[in-house]
Amino acid sequence: MLPGRGHRFLASRAVRSYSRPAAYVLPHTIKQLLASSPENEITTTLTGFVRSIRKQKHVTFADISDGSTPFPLQAVIESEKLDPEVIQKITSGSSLKLTGKLTKSAGEGQEWDFNVGELEILGLCDPAAYPIQKKTHTHEHLRANAHLRPRTDETSAMLRTRALLTRSICDYFDSEQFVQVHPPLITSNDTEGAGETFRVTPASDPPESELNGLDVSTSEGKPEFFGVPAHLSVSAQLHLEALSHSLSRVYTLAPSFRAERSQTNRHLAEFWMLEAELQLSTPSLGPILDVVEGSLRSIFDAYTRSTDAMVRFPEAKAARHALESEWRRMTYTHALEELNRAHDEGVFIKPTGKGKGKDIVPRPVWGQGLRSEHERYLARDAPIFVTDYPADIKPFYMRLNEETSTPPTVACFDLLLPGLGELVGGSVREERLDYLDAALKQRGMDLDEFAWYRDLRIYGTGPHGGFGLGFERLVSFVTGLENVRECIAFPRAFGRMKV
Amino acid sequence: MLPGRGHRFLASRAVRSYSRPAAYVLPHTIKQLLASSPENEITTTLTGFVRSIRKQKHVTFADISDGSTPFPLQAVIESEKLDPEVIQKITSGSSLKLTGKLTKSAGEGQEWDFNVGELEILGLCDPAAYPIQKKTHTHEHLRANAHLRPRTDETSAMLRTRALLTRSICDYFDSEQFVQVHPPLITSNDTEGAGETFRVTPASDPPESELNGLDVSTSEGKPEFFGVPAHLSVSAQLHLEALSHSLSRVYTLAPSFRAERSQTNRHLAEFWMLEAELQLSTPSLGPILDVVEGSLRSIFDAYTRSTDAMVRFPEAKAARHALESEWRRMTYTHALEELNRAHDEGVFIKPTGKGKGKDIVPRPVWGQGLRSEHERYLARDAPIFVTDYPADIKPFYMRLNEETSTPPTVACFDLLLPGLGELVGGSVREERLDYLDAALKQRGMDLDEFAWYRDLRIYGTGPHGGFGLGFERLVSFVTGLENVRECIAFPRAFGRMKV
Repeated sequence: MLPGRGHRFLASRAVRSYSRPAAYVLPHTIKQLLASSPENEITTTLTGFVRSIRKQKHVTFADISDGSTPFPLQAVIESEKLDPEVIQKITSGSSLKLTGKLTKSAGEGQEWDFNVGELEILGLCDPAAYPIQKKTHTHEHLRANAHLRPRTDETSAMLRTRALLTRSICDYFDSEQFVQVHPPLITSNDTEGAGETFRVTPASDPPESELNGLDVSTSEGKPEFFGVPAHLSVSAQLHLEALSHSLSRVYTLAPSFRAERSQTNRHLAEFWMLEAELQLSTPSLGPILDVVEGSLRSIFDAYTRSTDAMVRFPEAKAARHALESEWRRMTYTHALEELNRAHDEGVFIKPTGKGKGKDIVPRPVWGQGLRSEHERYLARDAPIFVTDYPADIKPFYMRLNEETSTPPTVACFDLLLPGLGELVGGSVREERLDYLDAALKQRGMDLDEFAWYRDLRIYGTGPHGGFGLGFERLVSFVTGLENVRECIAFPRAFGRMKV
Repeated sequence: MLPGRGHRFLASRAVRSYSRPAAYVLPHTIKQLLASSPENEITTTLTGFVRSIRKQKHVTFADISDGSTPFPLQAVIESEKLDPEVIQKITSGSSLKLTGKLTKSAGEGQEWDFNVGELEILGLCDPAAYPIQKKTHTHEHLRANAHLRPRTDETSAMLRTRALLTRSICDYFDSEQFVQVHPPLITSNDTEGAGETFRVTPASDPPESELNGLDVSTSEGKPEFFGVPAHLSVSAQLHLEALSHSLSRVYTLAPSFRAERSQTNRHLAEFWMLEAELQLSTPSLGPILDVVEGSLRSIFDAYTRSTDAMVRFPEAKAARHALESEWRRMTYTHALEELNRAHDEGVFIKPTGKGKGKDIVPRPVWGQGLRSEHERYLARDAPIFVTDYPADIKPFYMRLNEETSTPPTVACFDLLLPGLGELVGGSVREERLDYLDAALKQRGMDLDEFAWYRDLRIYGTGPHGGFGLGFERLVSFVTGLENVRECIAFPRAFGRMKV
């Protein structure tokens, strides 16, 4: 193909034009159609995918979904109105363009039918090869077809739930004067100090000539694209702290990454986190717990009231129960007292069989993390904040409590939810430079690497804190989907990346 | 430090408690205080940072910012009310906790003062060392102090602008029935087929023992964490296409990554993109252009009406002008005609000096991309959509136009803005399998690598399309900040990663 030259060549070329409509309108979605005075029987055009189809002699019923509603709309196609050969070709998975009217349904299970006047097949689908049949598939089969999985009722409902949760998160934090920010995902810092991170390098090596004169220092004898080794962020916290020193209250909903070599139903290599950070007037956990509880109650309220999410996950039991409960707040030390009482009362004793009468789980030990069995027990009735864990099992940035008793604790918390376990973790941050330096040194960390973070304590510091919430776990809690891999469109985990 | 054992140890340990307030309240931000009946002179407590300070004999004026407003609030500190030694210590950059009342200002330039009754220094700041002085700094100096840069008026206004734009983007797309989705950032696909991508690998090698029995195949003789080579996403488009086949209309605002070894003011290695995809009833660009224009007009409208963003970037000239303009829609072929006419009329002719009378830029050539000078000319008065570029210079996924003339064009567009150039690019996608396969083959690409993408055409395809919008360029356009590095909190570019 030879490119033409100059404008003399142009006159011979076909040209198109796109005019802007006087009133800007997109075609109706099924949701909009159902919401727009359907009794008026206005002729309208829809596009959608056939979820299932029943062909009878005189009439064909096709369940049509465009993803805007939890239940498909039943299209009624009368054979005499349309070409039988066209109707014959339609199968589950086909995409159609339908023109017709919404009419009161004579059938059971739906209020409205879509009475089809004109029909155009946009795309056929071979039912023998199509991996998404009407029958129930295993989650494993659906994950192996991650590009088609969103077409199932369950996954599309999950995706609408994510959108709803996202919206209600932003509504809450915006209304509480938090500024939504976008911290970097490529970073030179590793927040936890010992995370399993991913390394980021250019896919191709740079030509030597391009490096001349540029400030690209080397690491291990190789040039670094950014001048320093680059990793994917495991948490936005440190950057949020910097931003909170300007904007006072900040939040973000963005991916985080962990190169964890585990294949549990609780872990993803790429997952979304809600993280928030706020300046405080005193170094107290109270306001942070208030924000966590306030935001979650607001999100649960939006979820239980929404018809979008509700209809597929009709009970919304967990969210509703959390809304109706009082959320306890208890120190780690008190929690251990309660757990020991429960052990005394035989809660953790195996009632029958071999080992009968013995504790199934060991008693909790002060100074160690809580076992998941213990977390489940503490959150058996309602969400519970467990606060003030021992300093030794927590990261460097958590604020040391000032009580004189030893071993010391830090002003931190986990929020445990019934049936789920930890959803949120957070703390007051150590804003006192001498304490921060001591914590870094105690953990054998390099002060120079945290020079900019220490600067935040050197130039006009203030008490502040925040938290991180695992978004897929939130989706899991409200939908009841137990595996976080069903709570994200395209899950990434160790050994697994389809699509 | 010995961990305690069992609950007998616990009684001796100090415990804390956090009770939930009856009514959940965070302290006022300055913005909230100014909005809440300030004439009532209610005593309230604020925390904030000193932007500048003037000490007089009897009174000290300190400009206080908490990032919630474009202009700081003037705190009036009367010497007789407070300890002079404390007042003496306050400098620019210090953080304070102030209790007092809002009162009508006697001074010029502000309506309200904050009359301080009590004062507590939360954090001091050494003015000799503090890198953020009141004087104007170069952007380069501020970028080198990326952790403190958000404390400047310009950067905090930019950050509030990002939040405002994010909010208005979501408002628009939610109202148009688009579902906000979260496509993966780690991917095995490279959308453009020849992008400069980043490679993702675990920072540490897995122990051989952990690989046993797991489906982790190898690449170039080394195990891959995900079983296949992993890259950072250059665009969410292909995944959005899959999701649009379920949800019909989807959008996302998320980071994209390019390992571009350039250091211009238009490029970042990590940047945010708004991307949207929608199913269409016919394969026409029209509705896509409508969504782009509709969303941007809605965003510009929100921006020009907002006092938050407006006051720091007072004119909002570019956004206002775009709102008042008609946006032209013109094919590439017509655009070349217009450019050639302009050349004929001497628009691109150098008027004086050496080379006088000659075209400064070469005439456009059909079949090649537009030069930035030509883009600027086309968008000299108002935003303009340039559509239907030659197929040969566009990626495989764009839909081939059906006119018979050759060389062929594709149903795509760029939106060019005055003073900025390209802000948005998009297209109708090639939904016809045979055309798609031909386009892939013509570019020497492997059909097997796109098996899942081809599946979208095999199982119930339909016409669809979408676009991507560079979020930092949008920030640049509305704020007038010319370098995209000033339009993101922590810029990442070749050879540059501070903080």
